[in-house]
Amino acid sequence: MNTPSYTANELAERFSLQLHGNGDIRVSGVATLARAGRTQLAFLSNAHYRRQLADTHAGIVVLNAEDAEAVSGTALVAKNPYVAFAKIAALFETPAHHAAGIHPTAVIDPSAEISPTAHIGPLVSIAARARIEAGCMIGAGSVIGEDCIVGAGSELIARVTLVTRVRLGQRTRIHPGAVLGADGFGLAMDAGHWIKVPQLGGVSIGDDCEIGANTCIDRGALDDTVLDADVRLDNLIQVGHNVRIGAHTVIAGGTGIAGSTHIGRYCLIGGHVGIAGHLEIGDKVTVLGKSMVSHSIREPGQYSSSIPAVDSKAWRRTVARLRRLDRRTPRTSNHEQEPE
Amino acid sequence: MNTPSYTANELAERFSLQLHGNGDIRVSGVATLARAGRTQLAFLSNAHYRRQLADTHAGIVVLNAEDAEAVSGTALVAKNPYVAFAKIAALFETPAHHAAGIHPTAVIDPSAEISPTAHIGPLVSIAARARIEAGCMIGAGSVIGEDCIVGAGSELIARVTLVTRVRLGQRTRIHPGAVLGADGFGLAMDAGHWIKVPQLGGVSIGDDCEIGANTCIDRGALDDTVLDADVRLDNLIQVGHNVRIGAHTVIAGGTGIAGSTHIGRYCLIGGHVGIAGHLEIGDKVTVLGKSMVSHSIREPGQYSSSIPAVDSKAWRRTVARLRRLDRRTPRTSNHEQEPE
Amino acid sequence: MNTPSYTANELAERFSLQLHGNGDIRVSGVATLARAGRTQLAFLSNAHYRRQLADTHAGIVVLNAEDAEAVSGTALVAKNPYVAFAKIAALFETPAHHAAGIHPTAVIDPSAEISPTAHIGPLVSIAARARIEAGCMIGAGSVIGEDCIVGAGSELIARVTLVTRVRLGQRTRIHPGAVLGADGFGLAMDAGHWIKVPQLGGVSIGDDCEIGANTCIDRGALDDTVLDADVRLDNLIQVGHNVRIGAHTVIAGGTGIAGSTHIGRYCLIGGHVGIAGHLEIGDKVTVLGKSMVSHSIREPGQYSSSIPAVDSKAWRRTVARLRRLDRRTPRTSNHEQEPE
Repeated sequence: MNTPSYTANELAERFSLQLHGNGDIRVSGVATLARAGRTQLAFLSNAHYRRQLADTHAGIVVLNAEDAEAVSGTALVAKNPYVAFAKIAALFETPAHHAAGIHPTAVIDPSAEISPTAHIGPLVSIAARARIEAGCMIGAGSVIGEDCIVGAGSELIARVTLVTRVRLGQRTRIHPGAVLGADGFGLAMDAGHWIKVPQLGGVSIGDDCEIGANTCIDRGALDDTVLDADVRLDNLIQVGHNVRIGAHTVIAGGTGIAGSTHIGRYCLIGGHVGIAGHLEIGDKVTVLGKSMVSHSIREPGQYSSSIPAVDSKAWRRTVARLRRLDRRTPRTSNHEQEPE
Repeated sequence: MNTPSYTANELAERFSLQLHGNGDIRVSGVATLARAGRTQLAFLSNAHYRRQLADTHAGIVVLNAEDAEAVSGTALVAKNPYVAFAKIAALFETPAHHAAGIHPTAVIDPSAEISPTAHIGPLVSIAARARIEAGCMIGAGSVIGEDCIVGAGSELIARVTLVTRVRLGQRTRIHPGAVLGADGFGLAMDAGHWIKVPQLGGVSIGDDCEIGANTCIDRGALDDTVLDADVRLDNLIQVGHNVRIGAHTVIAGGTGIAGSTHIGRYCLIGGHVGIAGHLEIGDKVTVLGKSMVSHSIREPGQYSSSIPAVDSKAWRRTVARLRRLDRRTPRTSNHEQEPE
Repeated sequence: MNTPSYTANELAERFSLQLHGNGDIRVSGVATLARAGRTQLAFLSNAHYRRQLADTHAGIVVLNAEDAEAVSGTALVAKNPYVAFAKIAALFETPAHHAAGIHPTAVIDPSAEISPTAHIGPLVSIAARARIEAGCMIGAGSVIGEDCIVGAGSELIARVTLVTRVRLGQRTRIHPGAVLGADGFGLAMDAGHWIKVPQLGGVSIGDDCEIGANTCIDRGALDDTVLDADVRLDNLIQVGHNVRIGAHTVIAGGTGIAGSTHIGRYCLIGGHVGIAGHLEIGDKVTVLGKSMVSHSIREPGQYSSSIPAVDSKAWRRTVARLRRLDRRTPRTSNHEQEPE
């Protein structure tokens, strides 16, 4: 395999970056500031790592104009160094090759429709009336249930489950262990026993979405559960039935969203956040990690309710005093009524 | 496929509901208040959606007596509209058909016992001494380990793992990615290294349980991990070894229960709750989402410790003042000793 | 199958324990204090169960010197009764037998290297350039991606996914549903759309590690994500890209660690803990369950920020007063400036 290589001049021109230093220097890969050698390109976008700039052996560093002052070697200056780096790094990625065709161990229902340009891996099962469009990659061990559609160019890396009535847009990528379209959690108490509320809806995922490993997106009770285009979910996330998530929203790992909540566009939801059901979260809302959202949020902005860990002894004292707030504080005015 | 349809009269009689309005109106499906058309039935059970009542185009609405006043069209009045709706919706569900028999790609150990009325899907693996009873559905890609029993009428939707010594009751439903019977997390520190404590127990699941996608229930160290009948677990839940959960208890997504804790009957545990090990939680205990339970709870009632998110700036000030409680408050009396 | 049995004398000698009482008593299994019979051995290591000592019917009890006073029957006294019990219990474990060889339904790429002493179970898929070393057990339905290495004596119980560039040490055990080597969650916002940052690193797992069911360990962006030897992870844990975890560290279920954080040796991290990205956690740090770690921790010790649940009414009053702290407290001195 021939490793590609590029000069600083070539990269500057290709990605409209400003060159500082020697344009003839040539790199054949990318690495971190701390570990890059003379033939590698590194980047600086998180101030946390600025101190590594002085000692880096990277042949080229991608960074912003401000930090460029500190570099003695060759630099490529970008408005957004992380974006520039992502594009350069992609030049050095060797994408796995997936030949079109159906592996002989795959089990395909005769009523399923498989594009001749799709790749269906080993030990995949595809049920009745499913449709796999052009250029898709269905990785080993995946299970595609009845009436599911995988849009053109989408990739199910391996061992993904689409249960039923799941429709994926184009160029969507789903990581192993993810489960889309399982029954929503709908129960009604009838004479001391739970009865199951039928989950008749489906799941609709837009174009260019990414769904992390072991993440679950339940199908709707009546309408669909919906992710708009370019939604990005990390691993181990729970999306309840009839949730809707607006375009370009990103959610970090371990977060859970209860049923029927609607989240806007361009939201950033941290990890381990819990969002209650039947809420409305507007556009451009940021929720910091480990917070709980129990009311609708209509204004853009940053929200949180998490507390950083400290020494346990100090924390136990704080909790004890927190509890005593209740006993100690006299009720002094009307606005001190208990909320809700 | 013929779509079934029912008149308001027929539904009123069949489910003992009180009819308001035109009994001849006929519906052939169910939908939400907001999206239902003239030939669909909708319901109102959550006050949050009451405002949609005025504008709905639903042919029939199921609701309680109080709300029925507000409906101009046809209504079916129920004591518990959600239960009534669940039963009506089931009339319109087209259950997937699973023919009895073993798919030729399934791998079955000769010592396993498979009922002739069970359906074993493609690419399933069933190990030594396992037993699959009458009418079961074992979905694609599931793995049934040694000495597991799947009780009559149970369904493993797809890609479920029963590791070893897992016994399921009747009519239990398990969603994709769930793992029952993995080793409990038992470790002992011996001369600077961890040694594994053998996990010799199993998992015992009662009748009519439901286990969500990617939920994990570890097998016991000595005795079994036990779920009684009609326990309902959502997705991505962790149930540690030797936990016991009483009948009719419901647990929402992302909750974790550490080893050897016992939970009573008819409990309602919210999402993202953490419950420490070796506790006793009594019957009819409700724990609100994202709370932490670190002590036994013997009285029925509602418990919580979660804090709703607010604007991050305000929250940072609150956390700063919370920490200063400690410094600011004089110790004034005996009962202010640090707890535990 | 012949059940093995041992006398108290034999066990005392084999594991260097001190015998109290009748050395001829013989046991053929282990059980809890509460359920053990005359032919079983039980143990006491958690003070919570001390009250069961008086009523146990166990033939032999393993405990520490202090508790031994309270036993009338036969006792084996150990410095660490849990370690002694773990070793004794292992005598009664009947390990599943996995014959060397490749199941005919497994799909193996011709360029993969499989040791003749490895066991490859049914419906396993192994991709190009993977290597499975001596004595490994690859359980049913597992997927081993390109360029992965499974070190000698390691066990993938069932339905495990190694995506790509995952290298496991020796004697490592991975439970069902775990996903190692999925893309790290790297995104950069470019003109209103997210672009994917290539994830070019791998995952490196040391010897004697254990990875729980449905746990996810993402592969690194540039360098590897690394677990050193004897790291023990419970179920449903998220380990972000480029995290490093030091030897002998244990992490309980549901915890998440964001990208590029480094955790030291001999740490104990509780369940449902959230650890932010780009932090340094030193050696011998204990973090209690459900805490949030948002700053680096350099000193050994115990840290927390979680609040135990109480009656919801009392809790709502506490939250209301917590919010009013902000309004009520006069700013009195310089050190009351808002932090960070």
